[in-house]
Amino acid sequence: MLKKVLIANRGEIAVRIIRACREAGLQCVTVYSTADRTALHAEIADESVCIGPPSVQDSYLNMNALISACQNTGATALHPGFGFLSESAEFAQLCIDNGITFIGPSPESISMLGDKARAKETMKAAGVPVIPGSDGAISSVEEAKKIAAEIGYPVLVKASAGGGGRGIRRIDREDQLEEQMSVAKEEAKLFFGNDEVYLEKLIVGPHHVEIQIIADQMGNTVALGERDCSMQRRNQKVLEESPSPLMTPELRKAMQEAAVRAAKACGYYNAGTIEFLVDDDRNFYFMEMNTRIQVEHPVTEWVTGVDLVQTQLLVAQGKPLPFTQEDIQVRGHAIECRINAENPEQGFRPSPGKIRSLHIPGGPGIRVDSAVYQGYTIPPYYDSMIAKLIVHAPTRSQAIMKMRWALAEFIVDGIDSNIDFQLRLIKNKDFEAGTYDNTFLEKFLADSKNGEKENGK
Amino acid sequence: MLKKVLIANRGEIAVRIIRACREAGLQCVTVYSTADRTALHAEIADESVCIGPPSVQDSYLNMNALISACQNTGATALHPGFGFLSESAEFAQLCIDNGITFIGPSPESISMLGDKARAKETMKAAGVPVIPGSDGAISSVEEAKKIAAEIGYPVLVKASAGGGGRGIRRIDREDQLEEQMSVAKEEAKLFFGNDEVYLEKLIVGPHHVEIQIIADQMGNTVALGERDCSMQRRNQKVLEESPSPLMTPELRKAMQEAAVRAAKACGYYNAGTIEFLVDDDRNFYFMEMNTRIQVEHPVTEWVTGVDLVQTQLLVAQGKPLPFTQEDIQVRGHAIECRINAENPEQGFRPSPGKIRSLHIPGGPGIRVDSAVYQGYTIPPYYDSMIAKLIVHAPTRSQAIMKMRWALAEFIVDGIDSNIDFQLRLIKNKDFEAGTYDNTFLEKFLADSKNGEKENGK
Repeated sequence: MLKKVLIANRGEIAVRIIRACREAGLQCVTVYSTADRTALHAEIADESVCIGPPSVQDSYLNMNALISACQNTGATALHPGFGFLSESAEFAQLCIDNGITFIGPSPESISMLGDKARAKETMKAAGVPVIPGSDGAISSVEEAKKIAAEIGYPVLVKASAGGGGRGIRRIDREDQLEEQMSVAKEEAKLFFGNDEVYLEKLIVGPHHVEIQIIADQMGNTVALGERDCSMQRRNQKVLEESPSPLMTPELRKAMQEAAVRAAKACGYYNAGTIEFLVDDDRNFYFMEMNTRIQVEHPVTEWVTGVDLVQTQLLVAQGKPLPFTQEDIQVRGHAIECRINAENPEQGFRPSPGKIRSLHIPGGPGIRVDSAVYQGYTIPPYYDSMIAKLIVHAPTRSQAIMKMRWALAEFIVDGIDSNIDFQLRLIKNKDFEAGTYDNTFLEKFLADSKNGEKENGK
Repeated sequence: MLKKVLIANRGEIAVRIIRACREAGLQCVTVYSTADRTALHAEIADESVCIGPPSVQDSYLNMNALISACQNTGATALHPGFGFLSESAEFAQLCIDNGITFIGPSPESISMLGDKARAKETMKAAGVPVIPGSDGAISSVEEAKKIAAEIGYPVLVKASAGGGGRGIRRIDREDQLEEQMSVAKEEAKLFFGNDEVYLEKLIVGPHHVEIQIIADQMGNTVALGERDCSMQRRNQKVLEESPSPLMTPELRKAMQEAAVRAAKACGYYNAGTIEFLVDDDRNFYFMEMNTRIQVEHPVTEWVTGVDLVQTQLLVAQGKPLPFTQEDIQVRGHAIECRINAENPEQGFRPSPGKIRSLHIPGGPGIRVDSAVYQGYTIPPYYDSMIAKLIVHAPTRSQAIMKMRWALAEFIVDGIDSNIDFQLRLIKNKDFEAGTYDNTFLEKFLADSKNGEKENGK
């Protein structure tokens, strides 16, 4: 029986996991870098251990320090959160080797799904629709030209070990292929230490729609509806919603079934997300599977009533899922806005510093997952997300109204934030109509810039 | 069509109504006394009007100032919240006479239900179970003795114009009747300006269970489940939950049907609450009907998914209810703790003053309705409630765990609060077992005091 869990993360997700552990009757230990001594996740845990200096390499990515922290505090399980070591098969294995329950999938699942080309092959074999392209890595420019001619331009060349939108190049015509492929390989080598790339058809005007699954170690796998994450800037999600505005009952059923097939094909357990691209004709294609809890998990929690982190803790202890697919119903509409300490007027430059005044909205249908407080100084070393504002209402238009006024009420003084920017997005007609796709936000930003120029700004 | 609403209240309920108005696309005007210049409800409204000095008689109870504020700002409707003028038939009529929509029931309903003896007669005639007692006011000690002998001791003598637990006396034997009746009459005269009293059987170990109803002006009346408010100190509710731990599907159906009959018998529209006493054998008796939104409305909102304040706005505009009785399902379990600025160690003495540090819990299943912020100074002139902490979870035991940790996380520094006291209640075995009744809290307090004495405190 699990008694004490170490949370190998910081920020709002660490606070989220503390709350879930406590409600499950588990003690929790957090870790912090010297820059995070006064961070909320360090302050409110039962115990907190300093694991190193500010640099992530020396603290939140320091595997040995984390294992030692477990041993010194008697924590017998570790929750990795997202980012940091959450998708490191090596770290998951290290936990297991030290007798620590890793709250996530097996190292084998993480490893296989982390190799994007291998994951795609596995999905194709399991009957999950994949984007037409090379079956695995491409070895030469000639092979790439042949495949691109077959699937038709535009195509993308992508790093096999990629993620977060890096190591991707678009190729519109054959004469661009050699140069762009070489750029992609260099970037792949630089970011991921592996220059293997593969080729994929570019889906024009795609929607990013992902299916949340959760599975126990007995092989029970349940899909928890979808999230639309098409609102992206440089492949970083900005706002997420569930249901997706383009969802139909038939499409959801087909995507959920494909997601469950995908998870089963990898012997997957714990929480995971299968990301799909969906075109305007509602064809969907497997993109990748994220082997961890995601930033945007609260929208799924609110429409399904399932506490995903609690369920992670349950299945990590070898217990069966407490619900079946038939129990899951999607009710109402949820939207999440990521609140970042950044300045949208200055290219979204991060804005660390002291929060002089803070007012967080509340009331019915409002959830805020945050790790900041009035008087807290945001350190410059980590990501800029300081809170997630999630709303829920019976309909999408009511959820939009709720988000609009919750954003208007949200005050963060002393630093820059993207609150006003999110408010502009929420008020946008295309967003309101639900017709936006993955390309929307970049166009919106370009239009805003041109608009400013026209207005003499 | 309604465009602008004036909110004739302060504190968290004013903020709650601001949010509802905005989400409904309505502008909102708040009012404030000179002591409330920096109060949240004054700060965040579209417009705010000063209506007088701190004393409630000169500000929040100042009918003419409120009507003028409507006229000066162009507000064509008024939401009274709870307390203050919310149950004044005179004020409701004054609004109507000035062409202002009163967001509540008709002055006739308020007036009739405000007269407790008359309300009881109406309910009895409508087939709603009432507590055995005198049919209306009693004129003499002899009459009282005769009725008490019929219904059996112990009995209560209660002020016809009463409320808030005042003007009530318990009589265990005939020889106490004359004296206690005279005390009750004096108190009734003092507090309510009316010495009329009536007699009622005392229900031993009763549970306070109330049914929320909402009705439109076409006569559609829907019951929204129950709230258990048995956790009371001096007839003031401290903690509320829905469903009631003693509820059964049959009892809920019977109580909801009685509540709808009660509302229809008064031609009632807008939101209202029928308060019942329920004995251990699950017999229920009409106590009174509150003709306004209640402090504890959020627990109903969370288990039914209905936004009560939004629905009030809708029906006040003459629109039909957007749901029927069949649409309403009670899902999961919600608990509310009232967070007060008071010192439970010193007889719950109010503790106004400056909030130096504030941390409000968040995350899944947590709702906070509050009107305070870090740096805010709570004035000494008004009630001590500063926030409502509401939790929701699939089961009662999960909701209790959630409340427990949310209370543990809640920080209010600089003033005294009842947070630790609520935490002790939540951890109490009888509360956990759901076996507490209206008499629980006084015994709990007496036991705590004795315990302290035994421990040499």
